[in-house]
Amino acid sequence: MYYLGIDIGGTNTEFAYVDPSGCIIARGKVPTRGAASPLHLANAVHSAASLAAEEAGISPTPLSVGIGAPCSNPISGQIEGATDLPWPSPIPIADIFQKQFNAPTVLANDANAAAAGEMQFGAAKGLRNFIMLTLGTGVGSGIVCDGNVLLGSRGFAGELGHVSLGRGFSRLCSCGRKGCLQCYASASGVVATALELLAESDAPSSLRDLEQSDITPKDVALAAEEGNELALEVFRRTGAVIGEALASYAAFSDPDAVVFFGGVARAFPLMHKAIREAMEANILFLYKNRIKLLQSSLPGADAAILGAAAAGMLACRSNQS
Amino acid sequence: MYYLGIDIGGTNTEFAYVDPSGCIIARGKVPTRGAASPLHLANAVHSAASLAAEEAGISPTPLSVGIGAPCSNPISGQIEGATDLPWPSPIPIADIFQKQFNAPTVLANDANAAAAGEMQFGAAKGLRNFIMLTLGTGVGSGIVCDGNVLLGSRGFAGELGHVSLGRGFSRLCSCGRKGCLQCYASASGVVATALELLAESDAPSSLRDLEQSDITPKDVALAAEEGNELALEVFRRTGAVIGEALASYAAFSDPDAVVFFGGVARAFPLMHKAIREAMEANILFLYKNRIKLLQSSLPGADAAILGAAAAGMLACRSNQS
Repeated sequence: MYYLGIDIGGTNTEFAYVDPSGCIIARGKVPTRGAASPLHLANAVHSAASLAAEEAGISPTPLSVGIGAPCSNPISGQIEGATDLPWPSPIPIADIFQKQFNAPTVLANDANAAAAGEMQFGAAKGLRNFIMLTLGTGVGSGIVCDGNVLLGSRGFAGELGHVSLGRGFSRLCSCGRKGCLQCYASASGVVATALELLAESDAPSSLRDLEQSDITPKDVALAAEEGNELALEVFRRTGAVIGEALASYAAFSDPDAVVFFGGVARAFPLMHKAIREAMEANILFLYKNRIKLLQSSLPGADAAILGAAAAGMLACRSNQS
Repeated sequence: MYYLGIDIGGTNTEFAYVDPSGCIIARGKVPTRGAASPLHLANAVHSAASLAAEEAGISPTPLSVGIGAPCSNPISGQIEGATDLPWPSPIPIADIFQKQFNAPTVLANDANAAAAGEMQFGAAKGLRNFIMLTLGTGVGSGIVCDGNVLLGSRGFAGELGHVSLGRGFSRLCSCGRKGCLQCYASASGVVATALELLAESDAPSSLRDLEQSDITPKDVALAAEEGNELALEVFRRTGAVIGEALASYAAFSDPDAVVFFGGVARAFPLMHKAIREAMEANILFLYKNRIKLLQSSLPGADAAILGAAAAGMLACRSNQS
């Protein structure tokens, strides 16, 4: 028997049966918008999953079901206020799928699912204490401490993208506050730093050939990989901010490692040295030179579904113990 | 049967049998320095505890043993590098007491024991998510998330006294870094703020009648309680710094409450409003107006021993589940 991971997106809902080592045994997808209600979606996923399981020659009944979805509350098992989904909120999605599949079912938010996936199948395999930082459109995080993915009172533990870096960090964040890590380490944060550097000097850069409004983190990474000093400096500055933030985060959960995931994290090799230097320069002696910096090793396209399956696996195991 | 709490101090080792509601049924102490080795100490505690149990008419065999001691590593169960104790380090104290009492035994550090005590018997009773801040000579913390006291990779989770407040906070900390919460919220931090305010103006204050080097947080609190504006401002500033720090901490563990404990926390009523205002002004919307600020309700003199007993209780229960 296998673990079912389900990733509910605005357009499609993908699913996969995953074995304990993280291999996908069977998979498929159904259109999310084609379902008249969450019940209809669960029914459609069940039919498609049963078919996929049958074709792969495995039992369609999973050991556990893990669901990833936007605006997930892992405590209540509900989707709350998801504007990308065509049904009214709250949606008791864990209950609905639990009844449909007759298996223990959990709902995980993006960062928590990513942390679970990394712990079960990825770069954090075997670690009981680490912080997962997802650097993408936003900056999210999942904190694993003493072997558990932290949830907190209402499922909002680990919003490290919105820890303020303090005075001297003045960029305005989408959350309405100033100086959040997200303003510096997200995709738009990297672009903002690039624009700042372009404005600060006349240093040559292929980035000057692009419309400013078109510049992406990928453009900056490409220029850096070609050796452009200005682009390299963008990632050094980004890394320095991340490292300074991590020095504080260590004092919360005493982690063995920080795992970097997401679009901006593809430039991890360009930031690694700056992160390390800023982290060690600012960290309390108890944690000095003890925290590994790791790049996610989950396949990007399947990370969400593997993370969802892993969240289900973990919940299933902790119920048994 | 009862839970045994033991507090190993440099001078004396105190112990108490505690019932599930936190009542002390029997208690006693032995001189720490009188013991030739940790084994001799365990033996002396066992003899004294057996006698105390007999006098109280209860079984001397406890359900669990919880030990609080300086420089405790709750992961290894060892005391490591405690200069206040007369024996060479590391000391496998949990093992030694476990054999002596033939009961499950855990070693807890000060802040984790305080958090356990508050959760079992004090202001955080019934809460599964809270942060315990101990404001004393230093600033320590214990983080309870999803019902567990966080330990981390090497037992150093929750060193929130040494999270830097960022640029603009320039006081030098005993840890060698700058701007740690401890520099502002500890006993010496409160005194430093008082001295700053005394130097900043000629505002009247009974604190001016004291030698600067003799001023204690208690003096400042007394002046504040008598309505001295300068002394009141000391606690407003202290509270504002604590509140700003808490706004960041919330993003880690999504707590329901923060519990304040320790000598400086006796002035909690003088800081409460400033903490609340600064916290709400700086916090992410997800946590706004949701976090209770509570003063410890454990009896100060027995807090260490009740905390140790509670840490043993919790470990005992999580092993059974």
